[in-house]
Amino acid sequence: MTTVESENPLRVGLRRDRGAEPCTLVIFGASGDLTERKLVPALYNLQLDRLLPSGFAVVGVARREMSDDAFITAMREGTREHSRREMSDENWSEIAGGLSYVATGNNPDDYGNLARHLDDIDRRRGTGGNRLFYLATPPSAFATIVTRLEHAGLHRPGPGGGWARIVLEKPIGHDLSSARELNHTVNQVFAESDVYRIDHYLGKETVQNLLVFRFANAIFEPLWNHKYVDHVQLTVAESIGIEGRGRYYEEAGTTRDMVQNHMFQLLCLTAMEPPVSLAADAIRDEKVKVLQALRPVVADAVGASTVRAQYAAGVIGGEKVPGYLDEPDVARDSRTETYVALSTYVDNWRWAGVPFYLRAGKRMPKRVTEIALRFRDVPHHLFDHASRPNTLALRIQPDEGITLKFDSKAPGPKPRLQPVSMEFRYGTSFGQQPPEAYERLILDAILGDSTLFIRRDEVEASWSHIDALMNVWAAGDGALPRYVSGTWGPDESDAMLRRDGRLWRRL
Amino acid sequence: MTTVESENPLRVGLRRDRGAEPCTLVIFGASGDLTERKLVPALYNLQLDRLLPSGFAVVGVARREMSDDAFITAMREGTREHSRREMSDENWSEIAGGLSYVATGNNPDDYGNLARHLDDIDRRRGTGGNRLFYLATPPSAFATIVTRLEHAGLHRPGPGGGWARIVLEKPIGHDLSSARELNHTVNQVFAESDVYRIDHYLGKETVQNLLVFRFANAIFEPLWNHKYVDHVQLTVAESIGIEGRGRYYEEAGTTRDMVQNHMFQLLCLTAMEPPVSLAADAIRDEKVKVLQALRPVVADAVGASTVRAQYAAGVIGGEKVPGYLDEPDVARDSRTETYVALSTYVDNWRWAGVPFYLRAGKRMPKRVTEIALRFRDVPHHLFDHASRPNTLALRIQPDEGITLKFDSKAPGPKPRLQPVSMEFRYGTSFGQQPPEAYERLILDAILGDSTLFIRRDEVEASWSHIDALMNVWAAGDGALPRYVSGTWGPDESDAMLRRDGRLWRRL
Repeated sequence: MTTVESENPLRVGLRRDRGAEPCTLVIFGASGDLTERKLVPALYNLQLDRLLPSGFAVVGVARREMSDDAFITAMREGTREHSRREMSDENWSEIAGGLSYVATGNNPDDYGNLARHLDDIDRRRGTGGNRLFYLATPPSAFATIVTRLEHAGLHRPGPGGGWARIVLEKPIGHDLSSARELNHTVNQVFAESDVYRIDHYLGKETVQNLLVFRFANAIFEPLWNHKYVDHVQLTVAESIGIEGRGRYYEEAGTTRDMVQNHMFQLLCLTAMEPPVSLAADAIRDEKVKVLQALRPVVADAVGASTVRAQYAAGVIGGEKVPGYLDEPDVARDSRTETYVALSTYVDNWRWAGVPFYLRAGKRMPKRVTEIALRFRDVPHHLFDHASRPNTLALRIQPDEGITLKFDSKAPGPKPRLQPVSMEFRYGTSFGQQPPEAYERLILDAILGDSTLFIRRDEVEASWSHIDALMNVWAAGDGALPRYVSGTWGPDESDAMLRRDGRLWRRL
Repeated sequence: MTTVESENPLRVGLRRDRGAEPCTLVIFGASGDLTERKLVPALYNLQLDRLLPSGFAVVGVARREMSDDAFITAMREGTREHSRREMSDENWSEIAGGLSYVATGNNPDDYGNLARHLDDIDRRRGTGGNRLFYLATPPSAFATIVTRLEHAGLHRPGPGGGWARIVLEKPIGHDLSSARELNHTVNQVFAESDVYRIDHYLGKETVQNLLVFRFANAIFEPLWNHKYVDHVQLTVAESIGIEGRGRYYEEAGTTRDMVQNHMFQLLCLTAMEPPVSLAADAIRDEKVKVLQALRPVVADAVGASTVRAQYAAGVIGGEKVPGYLDEPDVARDSRTETYVALSTYVDNWRWAGVPFYLRAGKRMPKRVTEIALRFRDVPHHLFDHASRPNTLALRIQPDEGITLKFDSKAPGPKPRLQPVSMEFRYGTSFGQQPPEAYERLILDAILGDSTLFIRRDEVEASWSHIDALMNVWAAGDGALPRYVSGTWGPDESDAMLRRDGRLWRRL
């Protein structure tokens, strides 16, 4: 069933360079935003690059009744609007020929219809019983869908063989117990190796490049430890607010929305040991070890090592924006955080004593995701008493790239040092913007490469840490500082680093 | 007599940030090219930056009879043509007011006239008996000038106090014994601390920046040793030929002209240990240790570890150029090398087993001076079997800057790695071209900072190594391969590196 048998075992995972097998992609939640804005445009761009299998079909599934034509039209318009490259009707028709739609209500027979439809596609388009079920619905529907797939026998290869895989969009659970419950339900039906949990950050080119940067080059890894690194800063700043998603955000908050998944993934990739190989499990084994090494939450320490806050009204890019409490569907006395900053440690040999500072927030002055390593000072000051240590910043978005800040001699006879930067810009270096994360992730799921997906133990280790934090927060006085929209968060966050003698980077 | 007594002892050497004391600069060889093309334009630019002392005078000395006015006019025209910044008459007049000329023949009394002239300047311009004697003559005149300065009492502070320093242009000797003899003569008259031996490479901003780069930053030094560096390549390539200086070049050759001084200085700055401080002697102590650690020349090994060659006719930049043997003032059967490549080792703890490859040549495809560290391969290949190790290149000229080559993920779903570069460009980063080397060096000599000048033991250690090489060459069969002008030297040079499993960088 695997397609890599004839390959060198090293040539798996990130090194995969194979053709995709024919298959059908079944998108649950096909009438939702994600399908129209991300998934189908991603398919269009994969088709443009001739990366989709020769036999390929897409079945949209949702509650609403809709004709194939109506679905195809909606997807065409979505692609026209959201594709990263311009859409041509000619190229679109290659995708459109394989699109169809199936409505499913509460009637369990609906999945029988879906099964027959898929068998029919296998016959007509030669998709060989290979099915990729993509759950782009609200997570509350996950368990039901999985159970019904099982009842309809769709969790197993079709009569003519093939494979069945399932892709789960985030969030995976709301806390540790709900995540465990969902994982349990899913794993009763699908083997863990057939489960693809999406964290779209892992599909970003620069996130993948972090592994290349660290492990394909000999000169960074020797510096990548407590001997040379003073501390690490991870920032996920958004300038947008909650964009009308008050109902979702009230349930989630920034900690669940950003930290538990994206930021912990960035932390793992930054801190992990070199894996034995690039096989999916070799990498995920190392990532989960980072989460296991996170310094356990101790109630007394949480106050000094975490900051939560909520945005107040302010100005961003010259425009007035409302405070969180004035957003639609937000409780007037909401204590949901829109900003969180954490100071934590990876208690292992490599990172002993090196703080990892994480911050994520909405309504920041700008959108920027980056990982920055601040190096220790020189051991002996020859030139100056002022300390201007080196910094290596990996910008995930926007303007993906790498910047190394170091001291240089300013020109002229005066003995002035001046910080300068070596720069590498992903876009300009390769003459094109990198592909969208979803292109990579959908293709990998089709290829059966789960390297860039989250394994069950990762999700649960991450929730375990977040749960412990949230329990302490819940037991506290609930004080929640405000910060003016368009600023870098509350004073409390600056104070947290100041107590360690450090500063947040100005971005 | 020193001006640094009140300063923190750390604030010496490269960190010097003081005003210059009034003084008179006496240029011997004032009718020569160097004075008109480099020295006076450098003074003009120092004046423009207000770096010259308030009381300042320049006395040109040469054999030829000339009026002050004629000298001033010649210097003005030279400055107009060669100054790195445009000359204005107003700024020129500030220099011109302190210019005068004294002719000296073979009459020892001429130096008495010079002495009286200098005393007079001290009275008129408040230069306080401080004299800087700059020997820009052919080196054959050095000993005579020094001796006559002594006879005229000019090697000692004037009656009213002050200091007397001497600047020697290269070359310092033609081999070890002539260098020793000259140094002996000079040191009988001037204390070593008052002797400033010029290697104008040390005045280049990017050469000085090498010290800053290595020792003001914490992240390069840990990599700067045999554990991480595979080998080092130093290149000094010129596209010009001998430019009508056949008589000089026949005596010198590339080894004396480039390797013994400039390249060995670059080697020292690249390989040296961190100095205790930036004091001139602290740095020079470390540099001389590198020369002392150079693997001794063993006759049997010279054939395999050195290549000399001579340029034949060829084409550079679309223009036909003659071979060395057809240049004016070159013997038709000359065996003078215009290209030399060496493979050597710095036999100390840091550099054990790391080859240093040096190459210098005329009539190369372009002008480029650079130091490149090629790092070892990654210890474990995760991504690829092809080896593309990291390289750090410090470009001395032109386009001064630093480039770090590393592997990145090429965008897209295919698992391709691609070498990319992080770049720092000195000119663009600071919005101006760096000052000329001579500006820095003249100012330092005025300030009494000898950090960027060559100490006697450096010169002699360098000659000692070169002498040993030349003795082996002289005893050999004198075979001298040719290389076509406009190419990167003879095949023998590539073969030398190939035997070590390495390649010269393509520049």
